[in-house]
Amino acid sequence: MTTTANPTACVLIIGNEVLSGRTQDANLQYLARRLGEIGIALREARVLPDDRAAIVAAVSEVRARYDHVFTTGGIGPTHDDITSECIAEAFGVPWEPHPAAWALLENYYRHRNPPGDFNPARQRMATMPRGATLIENPVSLAPGFTIGNVHVLAGVPRVMQAMFESLAPRLRGGPPIVSRTVHADGLMEGRIAEGLADIQQRWPAVEIGSYPYYRPAGGGVAVVAKGTDPEQVRAAAHDVAAFLRACGGHPVEGEPA
Amino acid sequence: MTTTANPTACVLIIGNEVLSGRTQDANLQYLARRLGEIGIALREARVLPDDRAAIVAAVSEVRARYDHVFTTGGIGPTHDDITSECIAEAFGVPWEPHPAAWALLENYYRHRNPPGDFNPARQRMATMPRGATLIENPVSLAPGFTIGNVHVLAGVPRVMQAMFESLAPRLRGGPPIVSRTVHADGLMEGRIAEGLADIQQRWPAVEIGSYPYYRPAGGGVAVVAKGTDPEQVRAAAHDVAAFLRACGGHPVEGEPA
Repeated sequence: MTTTANPTACVLIIGNEVLSGRTQDANLQYLARRLGEIGIALREARVLPDDRAAIVAAVSEVRARYDHVFTTGGIGPTHDDITSECIAEAFGVPWEPHPAAWALLENYYRHRNPPGDFNPARQRMATMPRGATLIENPVSLAPGFTIGNVHVLAGVPRVMQAMFESLAPRLRGGPPIVSRTVHADGLMEGRIAEGLADIQQRWPAVEIGSYPYYRPAGGGVAVVAKGTDPEQVRAAAHDVAAFLRACGGHPVEGEPA
Repeated sequence: MTTTANPTACVLIIGNEVLSGRTQDANLQYLARRLGEIGIALREARVLPDDRAAIVAAVSEVRARYDHVFTTGGIGPTHDDITSECIAEAFGVPWEPHPAAWALLENYYRHRNPPGDFNPARQRMATMPRGATLIENPVSLAPGFTIGNVHVLAGVPRVMQAMFESLAPRLRGGPPIVSRTVHADGLMEGRIAEGLADIQQRWPAVEIGSYPYYRPAGGGVAVVAKGTDPEQVRAAAHDVAAFLRACGGHPVEGEPA
């Protein structure tokens, strides 16, 4: 589709709490939107348990396949926070104190009131794969890091977002991925499917997606045209609207309310 | 951990709309909880684009690795609904009209008032990998299916849930995975991390997870003990509560409000 010229990315969501259903992931949607704005095409996401072998295998696989890998979760001080040491293993480098992160946290705990203890658990948060570059954490201090094409972020959404925005200026994307949505109440996917397929064929560089919706007052279909050429996206969305009108619908620009 | 005796599962969430951030996935948490209740250990989830090569490769890989695979999304009538034909390709079987599904949908459209058109797009929803067993859809009729250890469900949450519940009696799980949560306001992960690691070592068959939380009135830590032996889970949670109390906290059973 349109995004072949854009750098690609994979997100790894690390944490038993997402796989048990305790926690609803709130990071993927944020990263997906921001990466699209930056012009990086998110191609895959995986949710992984706090399991060393699973994390190392997935990181090794996807860092070779995609231009960027973003991990969320598993970089706190507790025994189930093992992302950082797994990244070191995947890269085959030592996991060791990072001088700048160490100084930052040691200094923070020394000057807290009352002073905190920069204990072994907290020291783990300043221990990183050799060669890591810090990602600033303006919310809760303990930094994330980048090594190679892997960016290691926190799991708490507020912290993850702040870290991502610290990192964003260093990410080089392609042309932004833009989209236009047209929706029409009362139309059913099964009626418009063949016409939509024709429009998709007419605009091979635009990705056309069809999404039924359901509302108490009745449903309809939303059609999304997406790509990196704003003119083609606009023209494809125009064709969709004309077709929905020809099917007897009343197409409206934008998502259904 | 505790769940080695339980059958394992992987969820594949199929749809560009999740990878673009347009849609927040709402199916993983439901499946995660229900699988835990049934005693099936969810080990991984992946979000995949509407891309034939990506879907076929992922299905082929994970169906060999896990006891069950559940897919959501991509089984409607439009050109971007390609899950079913990709599953056929992954299994190396023909993708062909399923007689029972075909009869069901043909009959439905014939007797609608006004009659609908059982057109080629709708016929796609009755076209399945050879050997598929139907999964009933009490919400919107068009069925899902099981082939081998792969269960193919809709993407719309209400429909997905109804399909899963149609399927659930046919799934054989191990012992249910139970959990107990203890939380304490005001405690920080960095202070309790070493003691929690000790408790984890004492209860190797219980999975102990630590999750900080943030509230306008202040934060704390929630600790989850999870496993298939209710007695061990209870005892580990008891040890956690005693430890948090020794750290000066006031542990409360359950999730923070």
